[in-house]
Amino acid sequence: MVATQNFQISTNGQGDVRDVTRQVADAVSRSGMRSGIVTVFAVGSTAGMTTIEFEAGAIADLNAVFEQLAPREGEYRHHLRWGDDNGSSHVRAAMVGPSLTVPFVDGAIVLGTWQQIVLLEFDTRARSREVVVQIVGE
Amino acid sequence: MVATQNFQISTNGQGDVRDVTRQVADAVSRSGMRSGIVTVFAVGSTAGMTTIEFEAGAIADLNAVFEQLAPREGEYRHHLRWGDDNGSSHVRAAMVGPSLTVPFVDGAIVLGTWQQIVLLEFDTRARSREVVVQIVGE
Amino acid sequence: MVATQNFQISTNGQGDVRDVTRQVADAVSRSGMRSGIVTVFAVGSTAGMTTIEFEAGAIADLNAVFEQLAPREGEYRHHLRWGDDNGSSHVRAAMVGPSLTVPFVDGAIVLGTWQQIVLLEFDTRARSREVVVQIVGE
Repeated sequence: MVATQNFQISTNGQGDVRDVTRQVADAVSRSGMRSGIVTVFAVGSTAGMTTIEFEAGAIADLNAVFEQLAPREGEYRHHLRWGDDNGSSHVRAAMVGPSLTVPFVDGAIVLGTWQQIVLLEFDTRARSREVVVQIVGE
Repeated sequence: MVATQNFQISTNGQGDVRDVTRQVADAVSRSGMRSGIVTVFAVGSTAGMTTIEFEAGAIADLNAVFEQLAPREGEYRHHLRWGDDNGSSHVRAAMVGPSLTVPFVDGAIVLGTWQQIVLLEFDTRARSREVVVQIVGE
Repeated sequence: MVATQNFQISTNGQGDVRDVTRQVADAVSRSGMRSGIVTVFAVGSTAGMTTIEFEAGAIADLNAVFEQLAPREGEYRHHLRWGDDNGSSHVRAAMVGPSLTVPFVDGAIVLGTWQQIVLLEFDTRARSREVVVQIVGE
């Protein structure tokens, strides 16, 4: 069986990290499936999907490392093409990837206690993000 | 239902990024399935799979960050073992990962307009890459 | 069809990389399925899942790059919150991600010859890790 659910989430631009665990768990619950996998996919090339302990310190630490790795104010060839200012966003998003797949068993996703599913907004401006939650199981 | 498709792609070595979106979309189309997930997997330990806006600037920017993170001419213990020169390739590939899973709905993968599925060649020499496209759905 | 298997693995803390390919291959074999995908998921927010050529040199190289990217003895806001010392672990784990999905065909996972599935322990202390292996196929 396959069930598709979507949701939108508004972000405040680069560095904004949103906990979407509840939306994913609810989607699995609504599907009525008991066992399978759920793929959580951020539509667009300037966001990422992963897990983290969702607390302000760890999120600030992650953002600081991304800023060191691909600084927002660095020089990017992408800027020359479009007059964009989000070269750092594309680099960060490609490294993390837009997709996360999580097993669920007995109707519950198998996250750790301190592990949340998060959307990482890398774009330099506020965005409305579409997240597709695809559930495959039985 | 499950459908397997494979394709080969020739690359020019480190820094070569190939847009494989059409191959993946065609594979989904040929499967006849309408809804599910497609896993795109690069066989081998020196390539990666992700999404990016496929334009030359963003790709150059991504390569520049990888070169800073794990320089091709750096010193790697992997080189001592095999006389290889692709320690940078292994490090980059392990960080990105070889697998991407994308939902499809109504027969279409749910990418954003400026989001393409890409194989990142990290090896230091030209390679013929095997990509496995596994489609699970209904 | 869906089949769930779990295993535990004991690690020695940050930098320990464990080859779990056999456990995953055995799980697929025991499921009796011939074709599908297997999702390998590390429960917890301080471990990662990826593939690498499993040899000591490449693993040392990967750890060296992580140490440069998010140094263990760096300053992390996460430490201020809990008195923890594993800010570097959270950052590294979020970048790699906890999940890997691999196709299997004719009962065999489609890895390259020099490509192993590995759990990356990022935490600063020894851990007992739970890995969930979720197999979806037919």
